[in-house]
Amino acid sequence: MKFFINESDQIVNEAINGLLTNPKLARLDSFPEVRVVIRKDWDKSKVAVISGGGSGHEPAHAGFVGKGMLTAAVCGDIFASPTVDAVLSAILAVTGPKGCLLVIKNYTGDRLNFGLAAEQARALGYDVTTVTVDDDIALGQDVKKRGLAGTLFVHKIAGQLAEEGKSLAEIAIAAQKVINHTASIGLSLTECQHLGQETTSRLTDQEVELGLGIHGEPGIEVIPYAPADQLMALAVEKLEASLTVTNGRYAMIFNNMGSVSPIEMSLLVNSFSRTNLAAQIDYMIGPAALMSSINMSGFSVSVILLDKEIEDALLADAEPHAWQVQSFKKPAEVASPQLPETIPYEPSANLKVKQLIEETGNLLVSIEKEINSLDAKVGDGDAGSTFALAGKRLLLVADKLPLDDTGKLLLTIGRILAREAGGSSGVLLSILFTAAGNAYSKAPDLGKSLLEGLQKVKDYGGAKAGDRTMIDALEPAFEALAKKEPAATVAKQARLGAEHTKTITQTKFGRSSYLSETVLKDIPDPGAEVIARIFEKIALLK
Amino acid sequence: MKFFINESDQIVNEAINGLLTNPKLARLDSFPEVRVVIRKDWDKSKVAVISGGGSGHEPAHAGFVGKGMLTAAVCGDIFASPTVDAVLSAILAVTGPKGCLLVIKNYTGDRLNFGLAAEQARALGYDVTTVTVDDDIALGQDVKKRGLAGTLFVHKIAGQLAEEGKSLAEIAIAAQKVINHTASIGLSLTECQHLGQETTSRLTDQEVELGLGIHGEPGIEVIPYAPADQLMALAVEKLEASLTVTNGRYAMIFNNMGSVSPIEMSLLVNSFSRTNLAAQIDYMIGPAALMSSINMSGFSVSVILLDKEIEDALLADAEPHAWQVQSFKKPAEVASPQLPETIPYEPSANLKVKQLIEETGNLLVSIEKEINSLDAKVGDGDAGSTFALAGKRLLLVADKLPLDDTGKLLLTIGRILAREAGGSSGVLLSILFTAAGNAYSKAPDLGKSLLEGLQKVKDYGGAKAGDRTMIDALEPAFEALAKKEPAATVAKQARLGAEHTKTITQTKFGRSSYLSETVLKDIPDPGAEVIARIFEKIALLK
Repeated sequence: MKFFINESDQIVNEAINGLLTNPKLARLDSFPEVRVVIRKDWDKSKVAVISGGGSGHEPAHAGFVGKGMLTAAVCGDIFASPTVDAVLSAILAVTGPKGCLLVIKNYTGDRLNFGLAAEQARALGYDVTTVTVDDDIALGQDVKKRGLAGTLFVHKIAGQLAEEGKSLAEIAIAAQKVINHTASIGLSLTECQHLGQETTSRLTDQEVELGLGIHGEPGIEVIPYAPADQLMALAVEKLEASLTVTNGRYAMIFNNMGSVSPIEMSLLVNSFSRTNLAAQIDYMIGPAALMSSINMSGFSVSVILLDKEIEDALLADAEPHAWQVQSFKKPAEVASPQLPETIPYEPSANLKVKQLIEETGNLLVSIEKEINSLDAKVGDGDAGSTFALAGKRLLLVADKLPLDDTGKLLLTIGRILAREAGGSSGVLLSILFTAAGNAYSKAPDLGKSLLEGLQKVKDYGGAKAGDRTMIDALEPAFEALAKKEPAATVAKQARLGAEHTKTITQTKFGRSSYLSETVLKDIPDPGAEVIARIFEKIALLK
Repeated sequence: MKFFINESDQIVNEAINGLLTNPKLARLDSFPEVRVVIRKDWDKSKVAVISGGGSGHEPAHAGFVGKGMLTAAVCGDIFASPTVDAVLSAILAVTGPKGCLLVIKNYTGDRLNFGLAAEQARALGYDVTTVTVDDDIALGQDVKKRGLAGTLFVHKIAGQLAEEGKSLAEIAIAAQKVINHTASIGLSLTECQHLGQETTSRLTDQEVELGLGIHGEPGIEVIPYAPADQLMALAVEKLEASLTVTNGRYAMIFNNMGSVSPIEMSLLVNSFSRTNLAAQIDYMIGPAALMSSINMSGFSVSVILLDKEIEDALLADAEPHAWQVQSFKKPAEVASPQLPETIPYEPSANLKVKQLIEETGNLLVSIEKEINSLDAKVGDGDAGSTFALAGKRLLLVADKLPLDDTGKLLLTIGRILAREAGGSSGVLLSILFTAAGNAYSKAPDLGKSLLEGLQKVKDYGGAKAGDRTMIDALEPAFEALAKKEPAATVAKQARLGAEHTKTITQTKFGRSSYLSETVLKDIPDPGAEVIARIFEKIALLK
């Protein structure tokens, strides 16, 4: 497995430095021995909120340093608690007379090292309160719960109350309330892979883990792989069972464990919205990687019971970009506009135009096989069928067309081709007729309007004259038409253009762009050939 | 490979519905035949900005619908352009008298279908202008460039100008300027994997692709896998070569192609910050998945040359959460606090206390092997060495300790243990002494202070009496001390506690939690045994 790393022992330092391109953050100058990220604008006038732990959970925790959330984050090695002195450095660096709250995830290493640093800071006269987050509900009630993404609720709410100037005691009480009312569950398709190490997996393609840890430890249960909706239902069932309040209102953290693709995360939100619990969710943070486990392909859902204090603090603006709240609702719909019918105009009669359309339609049907066989030599062999389909459709609706209004007729043919003709040549012809119709409505000159339409074909299609496409026949024909040349001259120009395509053996566009000179030589472009045939047929009309 | 999906043909619909849990968005009610996401608050009073294309690039494009960016997004199937009618529905749904800008990525399917929809909308009387984004610089100058993540610069700037009430003509001119001044390059370790399909790879573990497409097409060059800094340097070299302005100022989109872990993305930002181009970057959007290619493990960097109009529009607030700008600078440092020396207090003399410390130190050194051998039966065999190390350290510094000030002495021993003793037992003893010292400073009662310290050991360590740890000897001894019992009684209580651990054969904490009853029976916890020995030694002191 390949990773974006340099030296294994520099991964954490380099990732922190990447984060520090944000000028609102700074590191202590004892970096990298001590890895502490702090708010650069911090003046110690309020209660500081500090958290941290092992790295590998990015953007947690350093990515949540900023006004309204953490004052400082202490980063250990991958999945390893930072040292006591690192935590002590953070406390001493940011704690002023109002004290600091230390937010600890419930892992032995973090509890011991953060706990000791707190005691030492107290010995030095600092006012430090610690809270320990244990939001993981996967292990049941009788085993110490781990700290998961729910920890971020504590960062946000304590950080906001600190920003508002609350006292350490008030913030600590609120933080404990948040902890008591937060629950998390995770599910993963794969465990995380340590960067730069050999890929291993304890799970088969038919197994997933429910109740995951964020340090590579096995999940609580191995369950069979199943569709996303079923997996989500199982996870949410566990979560719901742990909630003590009936009909509570909740905010939710929808967390990507590291490598789930964005489209899957959005799909998982939809899976969640199909559970009963969804109706109790008022806000969502995510979907995003917020408390990752390196590159685990999994998700976690954390919920917090809302009361006014928690809701207000959650919704307040915070500086860290990683924290984004949105309201959470069922999908809303608005009425779709009525699209125009295939033929939006009243029919009108014009015998000559009707004859032209019928003859063209018949021609396209009659040359289907011939053109397909030509296309088989230089393309995918269906050009004749594409044109024949358009021809049949024109024959079917000939009586309903606005035959006596050139502009409307062009637009109508464009609309028919848009809905009925297949392939990019159908769309290109539709663009030609529609744009020509639009031009004709402004200035009723058929030749110039068709040239304007052709220009759009070039703009949107990307090909130009000389690229061995229909354009090679259309352009000289339309130019002759614009000069009011007789139909025979127009047809002759189209034919010359089609013949010229036999000599074009290098091209970057269309059906022929992958073929060699030898193959293309002396074969006309099938599209150009059809155009020449149409104009030749028109020239013969009385 | 496992994915979070249900039915393959519902992936796009379900992902869109996941996004639509955001109540600021709505879908047209022709969903899912037509997949159009629009701003729910839209009143058609300003120019509409519409974009879209194949799905699989989430959060693009629907995730950028919102005030200040897109008015509507049209979503096709995975990597497939939406139909002409879908685009037309979007135009008709959101375009008012001021018209709309259609932002098209430069792929044939998008150009044709969006182009035709624009023509058809014009035929219906709507004022539509299209721009085509071609920011990919990987293919060189002579081949049509593709639209990559740089497209988002157009969404943001056109969206902001629209929000400000600018005319369609003004916005179109600005959008074209953005396109002319945007360049993107991508690099990937793996191609994307279609969800629910068999895993394939055209790349070996020693190959990466430079100049990637976002639809699974091969990159322009296959180059050897290399450290992140080197790969980034190669990509940035290409990007720099394409820039026409010397010493321009730029904003950058730092894009995750789908499955790069957060810690790697942050590391890649650091790699970028080591290139020469970094000094010309004023702002960064990301690192985040913004224009992904399902789950590709790759990144892209897009830069836009700043002028006042572009910079102002980029920095203006926008509603879509996926768009987050930060300033981009070199890492900043602030001075680290001075940590206290190992022994922060002046020495003072107290012969009795000195004797106590020396005797304890000597004891710990003398019983090292015995305790190690005990620990080998129930743990990892190093408990004796850990205590001996602490003992040696105490002997070394005995003369420098504040022997005549109990509170300061406790704190000093705590600090020595924090810096010198290894393992969690060292940290736990440090917590004990530090917390006891803190308590003693407030109320000078040794027994009660030690009990307070022990409470912290329980809080942070998670064990309690009966869990077969040191606590089983410490707690009864400290309780006796708090009752001012004589030293012999204290020692007896410690011994009783240590003996009791021989009968504890089920436990969840510490060194013995993985061992069977048979192994543990009749063996004391080595930590508790050491504590009993210490108190017995103290009781013998004159």
